[in-house]
Amino acid sequence: MLEIRYSYIKLLQLSQEIFEHFGFSKEDSLTAAQNLLMADLRGIESHGVARLRGYLRLIEQKRINPKATPCIIRENATTAVLDADQSLGLIVAEKAMDIAIAKAQESGVGMVSVGNSSHFGIAGTYVLKALTENMIGVSMTNASALVAPTRGKTRLLGTNPIAVGVPSLSYPSFLADLATTTAANGKLEILQRKGQEAPYNWLQDAEGLPTSNANALKIGGALLPLGGDELHGSHKGFALGSIVDIFSGVFSGANFSAWVPPFPAYVPIPENPVGKGIGHFFMAMRIDNWEEEQVFLSRMDQWIESVLNTTPIDPLKPVIVPGMPEHQAYQNNLENGIALHPIVIEEINELLKELDLYDKHHLSSNLQGA
Amino acid sequence: MLEIRYSYIKLLQLSQEIFEHFGFSKEDSLTAAQNLLMADLRGIESHGVARLRGYLRLIEQKRINPKATPCIIRENATTAVLDADQSLGLIVAEKAMDIAIAKAQESGVGMVSVGNSSHFGIAGTYVLKALTENMIGVSMTNASALVAPTRGKTRLLGTNPIAVGVPSLSYPSFLADLATTTAANGKLEILQRKGQEAPYNWLQDAEGLPTSNANALKIGGALLPLGGDELHGSHKGFALGSIVDIFSGVFSGANFSAWVPPFPAYVPIPENPVGKGIGHFFMAMRIDNWEEEQVFLSRMDQWIESVLNTTPIDPLKPVIVPGMPEHQAYQNNLENGIALHPIVIEEINELLKELDLYDKHHLSSNLQGA
Repeated sequence: MLEIRYSYIKLLQLSQEIFEHFGFSKEDSLTAAQNLLMADLRGIESHGVARLRGYLRLIEQKRINPKATPCIIRENATTAVLDADQSLGLIVAEKAMDIAIAKAQESGVGMVSVGNSSHFGIAGTYVLKALTENMIGVSMTNASALVAPTRGKTRLLGTNPIAVGVPSLSYPSFLADLATTTAANGKLEILQRKGQEAPYNWLQDAEGLPTSNANALKIGGALLPLGGDELHGSHKGFALGSIVDIFSGVFSGANFSAWVPPFPAYVPIPENPVGKGIGHFFMAMRIDNWEEEQVFLSRMDQWIESVLNTTPIDPLKPVIVPGMPEHQAYQNNLENGIALHPIVIEEINELLKELDLYDKHHLSSNLQGA
Repeated sequence: MLEIRYSYIKLLQLSQEIFEHFGFSKEDSLTAAQNLLMADLRGIESHGVARLRGYLRLIEQKRINPKATPCIIRENATTAVLDADQSLGLIVAEKAMDIAIAKAQESGVGMVSVGNSSHFGIAGTYVLKALTENMIGVSMTNASALVAPTRGKTRLLGTNPIAVGVPSLSYPSFLADLATTTAANGKLEILQRKGQEAPYNWLQDAEGLPTSNANALKIGGALLPLGGDELHGSHKGFALGSIVDIFSGVFSGANFSAWVPPFPAYVPIPENPVGKGIGHFFMAMRIDNWEEEQVFLSRMDQWIESVLNTTPIDPLKPVIVPGMPEHQAYQNNLENGIALHPIVIEEINELLKELDLYDKHHLSSNLQGA
């Protein structure tokens, strides 16, 4: 199959204009489009423009407020709690990380929890903001329940990702960005499209038994925490997902555990909510808390080199520093354009027709036209 | 086999006196003994008095300094870097968490990295200090390389545990304490003693191939990061272990990756060290950064109840809140005494003979005498 690639600028303008169409300010629309597109640039296509339609359905249902005015409801020199006012996560998350960075500039460390929010794309995007300031960054979010706890039959936690970034001198920054599950939901979607089975220890069925049915989530099944089963440490994956849920949801007054609202707008919001919307957590830290900047950065170079110098099992598959493949994808996609799946192209074109933006922004399937 | 249990006080006095015998002050010896014994109390027997002999061999080899005077080498209102002066980790880790707690009292958040240190027992012990102050606590340490990175043939990271605790109102605190590997080394030791095979995805051999040989670590093999293999997310476990290594080692000026000194005193220290000793990282956070204390604690109760109320797959195996089994073990062992393995009893008695403390402190195998 021939790949069709679209320039970053084209997809950015298209996304920005779609957000503007729904009533977001020009500035907020740009922020949202940039943070959404960062997923495509870094090769995490499940979380990029493929989700535009999903976000818009949430706006139509008034689960996301384009005119939101997030405000700080609790604050001291190092921490803040932000009520997102049902903002689009892609917008308020950037504001929150900005606050964390400003506090870190002043106090060495800044932490911000955000409640009453919605989905924010990939966690790593906001860590990149801290890295740009030569700071260490942390980003987390909770999400609607798809994951069963170890020994549990029913879903309790979201895929609850955590991202941590540390700058270095001569290499792309260390940037770990991981869902606290065995498999990302995006990988499951690929198997579903191909009609393939899921590997053992990715999923359980509605009775809590192991299943290879890639569609198990649609019939009451659940994703498994990182580790897969108890013998392989799934209780650790569950504990990590729990930490993300507590830092994001309990800290901020957002919903947590099974009460976190879902991404698909057709799925009802859980009853008797324990908080407001979805929760995030951000941290920024100055590196000169720990050491003179240049010494710190050189140490990180040494750390990264120790990974790169590890003898690989297969010489054709070198050992990977967290964040390096995504950085390479970023450079490649920025230069050569972002490849979109034909289904995503079709969905976006449908969306553009719906919004009367097709003539201006449609995605041509003609390679020359891309 | 009849279990022999010894009172906490007996094992505490014995351990304290052994440390004093090696030149630690009375106060430091008590601290060390308390933090060592916390592992036994919480049912993590691999990290308790069973390791007394290991620590003493390190002192004999002058890899640990009983007269160490740790000092702060860098500091601001929220963070500090501590040079442990080759202290016993069990002692300096408590001092470090005390500093983090004091900074959190003043500034909301306190973080301390520690370099030039040695092993500190279980990470959770120091988190309990923060929990006692009604604070959120985090504790990490790096350790000598036993774990291969995903795709790597050779060992790069330690089992690098991370512990996170959050207080609640009516339940034992949430306390996740986990090695970032599929299996803890302690579980492997049990299989070795029994001559049993290790489960798939716990270990690889010297060529990087899967192995069920529980003794693989002794012949060039490696533990696998949480996840087991790449298909099950071992790159995530590796990323988590990396974060612990960077926060503990790179932040503090300790060694990191394959340079971290080993626990067994007969294993040579890696050449061309990149730092000093072992590194730890601690954080304490006030809960009223985030919400009025009582509201925060009630939310944590709700969070914990959502876990406890999850339908279990097997009604006889309820879903577990991280830290709850260890809390139950703590209460049971404090009341009924700590059960020691016959091999551990024998080793400690040998040690007491060596130090001329046998008459005063020996562990009787007579159940009445215990």
